[in-house]
Amino acid sequence: MNDQVSKQQPIDPKHLALQKTLDIICGKWRLYIIYQLGTEARRYGELRRMIPAISEKVLIQELKALVSLGVVEKKSYNEVPPRVDYSLTEKGLQVLPTLLKLTAIGELFLEP
Amino acid sequence: MNDQVSKQQPIDPKHLALQKTLDIICGKWRLYIIYQLGTEARRYGELRRMIPAISEKVLIQELKALVSLGVVEKKSYNEVPPRVDYSLTEKGLQVLPTLLKLTAIGELFLEP
Repeated sequence: MNDQVSKQQPIDPKHLALQKTLDIICGKWRLYIIYQLGTEARRYGELRRMIPAISEKVLIQELKALVSLGVVEKKSYNEVPPRVDYSLTEKGLQVLPTLLKLTAIGELFLEP
Repeated sequence: MNDQVSKQQPIDPKHLALQKTLDIICGKWRLYIIYQLGTEARRYGELRRMIPAISEKVLIQELKALVSLGVVEKKSYNEVPPRVDYSLTEKGLQVLPTLLKLTAIGELFLEP
């Protein structure tokens, strides 16, 4: 979408913001992972168990994408054995209420 | 996403609802078209002018998808020349406030 826009017209800041939102929401499983995290910190293994349908490769890839988007943070603890967990960033927590409302949209449209 | 789920675990209704939401939001240009419609009825030519970066083919295809999802309705008027316009359905209008909040998410994450 961005490509087309940048070729054909000046970039509209609203459109850029919208594209950023879509990057966060529309990646495969991203919103689902955000919902599973909610307000908790979760270890990788916990997330695996919470979303059994997702493959290991995709979970790692989507967590990386969410970290690089600034939605999720990964914390490593200096423990033996080493512990790593994932949680929503401050910004991620800020937008969580809006993101949680998105399920209700689907529910409404699933009604006959 | 649905494919994987149906093969590996019983379908979670929340997940189905979420997938429906993603269908509405994540199609190319869909959310952008919804924003342009807002609470107005718009003729096809108007939408073309409002979103000049989108190709004719894609606009037609995305409008069709939104109609079949139940978000947009197409009305034909018995006039000469024939008039057709597009507007949000009742359900579409119901979810518009939540959809409009999505731009603010992108804005927050674009901030340094």
